[in-house]
Amino acid sequence: MTKLRCSLSISLDGYLAGPVQSVDHPLGVGGLQLHDWAFPLAAFRREHGGDEATGEVNASTQIIEEAVANVGAVIMGRNMFGGYPGPWRDDPPWTGWWGDNPPYHVPVYVLTHYPRVPLVMQGGTTFHFVTDGIAVALAAARETAGNRDIVIAGGANVVQQYIAAGALDEVNVSMVPLVLGAGERLFDNLGARAPRLEQVRVVEAPGVTHVRYRVVK
Amino acid sequence: MTKLRCSLSISLDGYLAGPVQSVDHPLGVGGLQLHDWAFPLAAFRREHGGDEATGEVNASTQIIEEAVANVGAVIMGRNMFGGYPGPWRDDPPWTGWWGDNPPYHVPVYVLTHYPRVPLVMQGGTTFHFVTDGIAVALAAARETAGNRDIVIAGGANVVQQYIAAGALDEVNVSMVPLVLGAGERLFDNLGARAPRLEQVRVVEAPGVTHVRYRVVK
Repeated sequence: MTKLRCSLSISLDGYLAGPVQSVDHPLGVGGLQLHDWAFPLAAFRREHGGDEATGEVNASTQIIEEAVANVGAVIMGRNMFGGYPGPWRDDPPWTGWWGDNPPYHVPVYVLTHYPRVPLVMQGGTTFHFVTDGIAVALAAARETAGNRDIVIAGGANVVQQYIAAGALDEVNVSMVPLVLGAGERLFDNLGARAPRLEQVRVVEAPGVTHVRYRVVK
Repeated sequence: MTKLRCSLSISLDGYLAGPVQSVDHPLGVGGLQLHDWAFPLAAFRREHGGDEATGEVNASTQIIEEAVANVGAVIMGRNMFGGYPGPWRDDPPWTGWWGDNPPYHVPVYVLTHYPRVPLVMQGGTTFHFVTDGIAVALAAARETAGNRDIVIAGGANVVQQYIAAGALDEVNVSMVPLVLGAGERLFDNLGARAPRLEQVRVVEAPGVTHVRYRVVK
């Protein structure tokens, strides 16, 4: 059964990004530290670039590999795609944070208020810009993904919308020993739509605790 | 080396108590669920009452046993001692939530703005009411505890004060698959005094993930 899932690193006070996000600080002030556990890993560098040969293998390797396995489509918010709010500009066109060959290698549905023609990148990633909301993006992603899973890449607002709609099946949280104090919280703004969660699995790894939760429906 | 430590259950959105705390809901609306993992345990019932013989033993047993082992003194806030704000009343006197034989069995220092004579309970627990702030309470607790540890029982505000003062050595977090949406957050109001934490150990248990952090000084 195909799943709608996400894998997110959060601080002990619940933030997946720090305050004052910008082109220079896409994860906000201090937010990049949320991923310190991943950067040294060979499995991470295989996806995101970096010297894989000198990369480490540890208990987090499995987490990275699972996150990218059997993914048929990705959904993300406009803020995560970046790099400025408002209408798209052409000079130069913004093509995401990830260079010419983004680490997705599947169609990526970007939720935005501003239409734009699809953006074909190297390595199988095409960014489709969806202006009709989360249900339309999910339907398109399901069509594309077939019997593979769909990953919500972020940010918090998009994950919250899919939780509130009852569509999310699985949340993978990587709990980092960091107190950010401000920023964007993963489980926020949910009110009565807060999910019922069941702890499925815990992996202890250097400097991080990975917990998988199933959304009980 | 004697430690100042705490063991607290928190929701995925960081709360150790729900909203609208009261005598009827000492942990706020929904807050009691934060401890659902503990209630069935024989080790918990040994401390807090309940039928120990029918209690369970699982991976959380060790966490309960460690939390109460080698403790020489306890510190808590007035809100945690309860059951109303303002000056102490005599008719009837409030003696805490825990009945005649509280689960502490050592001196407990209650931080309050309102003086009160010490309250001697059964089983070795005596509540001392400290009106001179956290440093005075900690000094008294250290004197009492000798080479045993000092536990901050809660609530959030008191833990935050000791973190901000650089006095806390260890935080044991029991992460519960619950989104409360409102209440009192453990790691809040810290600003630039946010602690540097190092993950020491993770224990996966039914319905909860226990993580120990050392405060890096």
